[in-house]
Amino acid sequence: MTKHLTIKETGLYLLARDNFLILTHRRPDGDTLGSAASLCRALKSVGKTAFLLANPETTPRYAPFTDGLDAPPDFSPACVVSVDTASEDLFPDNAQIYVNAVNLSIDHHPSNTGFADFSLLDAGRAACGELVLDLISEFAEVDTNIATALYVAVSTDTGCFSFDNTTADTFAVASKLASFGAPISELNRTLFRAKSRGRIAVEGLLFTNIEFHFNDHAAIVIISNAMSEQTGADEDDMDNIAALPVSIEGVEVGITIRELKNSPECKVSVRSVEGISANGICAYFGGGGHARAAGFTSSEPADVIKERLLPILAELLS
Amino acid sequence: MTKHLTIKETGLYLLARDNFLILTHRRPDGDTLGSAASLCRALKSVGKTAFLLANPETTPRYAPFTDGLDAPPDFSPACVVSVDTASEDLFPDNAQIYVNAVNLSIDHHPSNTGFADFSLLDAGRAACGELVLDLISEFAEVDTNIATALYVAVSTDTGCFSFDNTTADTFAVASKLASFGAPISELNRTLFRAKSRGRIAVEGLLFTNIEFHFNDHAAIVIISNAMSEQTGADEDDMDNIAALPVSIEGVEVGITIRELKNSPECKVSVRSVEGISANGICAYFGGGGHARAAGFTSSEPADVIKERLLPILAELLS
Repeated sequence: MTKHLTIKETGLYLLARDNFLILTHRRPDGDTLGSAASLCRALKSVGKTAFLLANPETTPRYAPFTDGLDAPPDFSPACVVSVDTASEDLFPDNAQIYVNAVNLSIDHHPSNTGFADFSLLDAGRAACGELVLDLISEFAEVDTNIATALYVAVSTDTGCFSFDNTTADTFAVASKLASFGAPISELNRTLFRAKSRGRIAVEGLLFTNIEFHFNDHAAIVIISNAMSEQTGADEDDMDNIAALPVSIEGVEVGITIRELKNSPECKVSVRSVEGISANGICAYFGGGGHARAAGFTSSEPADVIKERLLPILAELLS
Repeated sequence: MTKHLTIKETGLYLLARDNFLILTHRRPDGDTLGSAASLCRALKSVGKTAFLLANPETTPRYAPFTDGLDAPPDFSPACVVSVDTASEDLFPDNAQIYVNAVNLSIDHHPSNTGFADFSLLDAGRAACGELVLDLISEFAEVDTNIATALYVAVSTDTGCFSFDNTTADTFAVASKLASFGAPISELNRTLFRAKSRGRIAVEGLLFTNIEFHFNDHAAIVIISNAMSEQTGADEDDMDNIAALPVSIEGVEVGITIRELKNSPECKVSVRSVEGISANGICAYFGGGGHARAAGFTSSEPADVIKERLLPILAELLS
């Protein structure tokens, strides 16, 4: 059983300890990395020794914010803290030796399993970074670097303040972080507004080739190898394109059929709104996934896959 | 010469008067309509008679927020107020009889010409709605409807808090508006997350027709009437497309040249990154606006406008 702490208690807990190692979760996002980086910097600013455990899956997008904070190989922590991580199985492989030895979990997931000795949990926060700001404010000054990392955490977990989790508190936190010197224009540009030339080309291609079916409730797009090559797009540019068709007003199922490079196979991604099982659609083709995001691969030509999907969609959407 | 008022003075000015008519600008956006609607509701809430002058170009996206506020045909105002409008030539045709009789201009454009008898101007505000919130707070309670209209104003003028004009104050305003009951999840979904079929088609068109110049530091796109028609896009779908070219990585100036429907003119929108004056570029063509977001209209063909812009861009980007 974990012991739940208040923000004030957690501040005192940290001040009473030293030699911190901060863990982030697998496939790290802005919230886990930004929360970890800011907490690490805050602890250092009050004279503590604190490091992050290097996360091998950190992408170039977020790497600058954790730069210089990773623990040296010989570091032996006295206090292991995890941020934004709901359960032990979400830690990366190199964190496995600490999984049963997490002293403090700071998190905003309602599904947090209470795996740590102590927990600072608040499921009402849009981002873990909101909670970390309050915690840091208990014991340290929020400098520009801390504010920057926290802005990364809060802005990315709320889709630049557009997702349903955004609250008055989220905006108040963002206001404070801007006041503390977070370069919000630059961060917004990098994190949200900037699109690569390749990405622009891919979206242009997708948006001009998308087909609508069944009173526009289904949107299907085929991306052939020839089309991909024409855009000059790389894998980063293709990231999450499967989410685009279902973001169109009125669309309940969005399907992306993409010919794989140097392979006779197609990768099919299905995204759906609540009430329609993406998983169920993919099961017809031996695939699977989640209720609203699933996929499969097929060695049939893209057009044939589409023709096989249509009657399934017809039944679902009728 | 206009007389400049403080927020407090403007509050007293309004309280001392009655029978208000509020004017919005041509091709009305969320900021002008949201500012006008909230001010109108606030004046009514303290017992004043106040109406908007119906803006014939109001799109379905924003129409719900001004619903029921338009002046009856026989209304004879005693005080004419304009919001978010930098100069007289930006008023719609049905406002022409009031153009030389604007008593108070409330605006955040640095290029405001001082056309009104009195002016409440603050070019430091991301949205006119930020200023209107402070003004309304001087004399009325901010109820849910007022907060909703102001959230429309502030969120749309900042691209859901992602544009460079967003500041700590903008976030503080958004936090207040959420506290006052603005339904931010619903508004964000309607205004930012959902994309219409027409919008998808417009973005597809824009992304496939964009041209890059000067080592890709300038991006220019021409949207002809034929192209617009082919997409079936309406004015709502065209909203804020000017922000897209400059959102591409490495682009420092993004220019959208759009042929206007049923008009021989083109509307040119210029967006720039810090250090490059969009205002300055537009000044060559008799236009204006903000440092990083400005525009002009021209009766020259789109290709000719582009050819005239290129040497100006060459000099700026060299």
